Amino acid sequence: MTRFALTVEYDGRPFMGWQRQDHGPSVQQAIEDAAFAIIGEKAVVHAAGRTDAGVHGLGMRAHLDIARDIGPFRLMEALNARLRPHPVAVLDCVAVADDWHARFSCLARHYEYRIVCRRAPLTWEKGLAWRIPAELDAAAMHAAAQLLVGRHDFTTFRSAHCQSASPVKTLDRLDVTREGDRLLVHASARSFLHHQVRSMVGCLGLVGQGKWRAADLRDALEARDRARLGLNAPPDGLFFVRADYP
Amino acid sequence: MTRFALTVEYDGRPFMGWQRQDHGPSVQQAIEDAAFAIIGEKAVVHAAGRTDAGVHGLGMRAHLDIARDIGPFRLMEALNARLRPHPVAVLDCVAVADDWHARFSCLARHYEYRIVCRRAPLTWEKGLAWRIPAELDAAAMHAAAQLLVGRHDFTTFRSAHCQSASPVKTLDRLDVTREGDRLLVHASARSFLHHQVRSMVGCLGLVGQGKWRAADLRDALEARDRARLGLNAPPDGLFFVRADYP
Repeated sequence: MTRFALTVEYDGRPFMGWQRQDHGPSVQQAIEDAAFAIIGEKAVVHAAGRTDAGVHGLGMRAHLDIARDIGPFRLMEALNARLRPHPVAVLDCVAVADDWHARFSCLARHYEYRIVCRRAPLTWEKGLAWRIPAELDAAAMHAAAQLLVGRHDFTTFRSAHCQSASPVKTLDRLDVTREGDRLLVHASARSFLHHQVRSMVGCLGLVGQGKWRAADLRDALEARDRARLGLNAPPDGLFFVRADYP
Repeated sequence: MTRFALTVEYDGRPFMGWQRQDHGPSVQQAIEDAAFAIIGEKAVVHAAGRTDAGVHGLGMRAHLDIARDIGPFRLMEALNARLRPHPVAVLDCVAVADDWHARFSCLARHYEYRIVCRRAPLTWEKGLAWRIPAELDAAAMHAAAQLLVGRHDFTTFRSAHCQSASPVKTLDRLDVTREGDRLLVHASARSFLHHQVRSMVGCLGLVGQGKWRAADLRDALEARDRARLGLNAPPDGLFFVRADYP
């Protein structure tokens, strides 16, 4: 039995999310089906994070165990051949130690959220960014975002369906940068609550439009009350960028 | 009668190209149909460039004449509302002088070509970049590209269907830059021949893979012979970025 670590890129638009679902296609199922077609084994694929429906992956990490003798390069090529026409691609595949776990060994997760400020609908980027038909004050958003960095109870920014044992997380980075009519939000932490990035970005969007001040964001955080969330940003603009391991 | 200048963004994937065709959808037709639905007039939309099937627009310029009294902002909003669900959006709309012509007044056209170097298939970028499953030498490509800059007979880099009166054009810029596994080619000129950017990029791709040396590119240019073209790059990676006017 060999454990293989994968780096996976995917377009989240056609999927119900990373995790296997009864009621629709998932990235996990696409990869597991491809592996089954190649090796004839039912392998379970574990990921660093279980992204929501419509959320994308640029460098998701995952692992699976395979009994059959196959090299990592051949496995990657075969998976990519079988994954078509799904918009899922294995960018890298390496054999790892049996105790390497894509989820539990992960030291840090990095997300990027893409916002486009304009009135006109999106074209080639539809489903790949959050369009806000207003000018956003990126400096005000970045300043407010720093109130969320550090160790906090993020109950306000947590989905009602979140399965995490604790709402307390340490947010290492939440940066807002602008380039023309585009804003990028970079978020890094050891781990995130369900919907945490989208919920933080949604509230920063309110700050950027002047509907919230930084103090409103701080009050929402301190309330530890989901009902105080200003806005949950759509999945469209969210990309799982990278996971770090020892 | 008022002449309106439009800035148009579009995803070229579902279209037969910019120009109206009998046998399939075009960007021009999408905009003309939207204008007809709004104002009840058959307006002809003229563009700075007629991009091929599968080529995208980030900032295409175009114009149309409208007899009915309508302001530019209202026209833009109405066009965008009617253009759905086509991946075409009007980013800007201004009233211009009657002798302003999107094609004939244009002083310079700027294209960008996106290349991704990797073995794995593209996912969310499928149709939006040219994937080359090899490492490319961007520095060699950029150096070779400079042989094409200036005033030349570009017959080798011209489609057999090109309608331009002369194959002699002045290429002002052809830059190749790299960021990670991505290469960007920027091309600027007053005007281009049909397929010129794709043909130049295709040959630069050969240079980047070491299949051609810079001297092969120079020989191909000097041959003034379409049969000497190394490769025509696919439309996927090509974006019309901007047009300049007095």
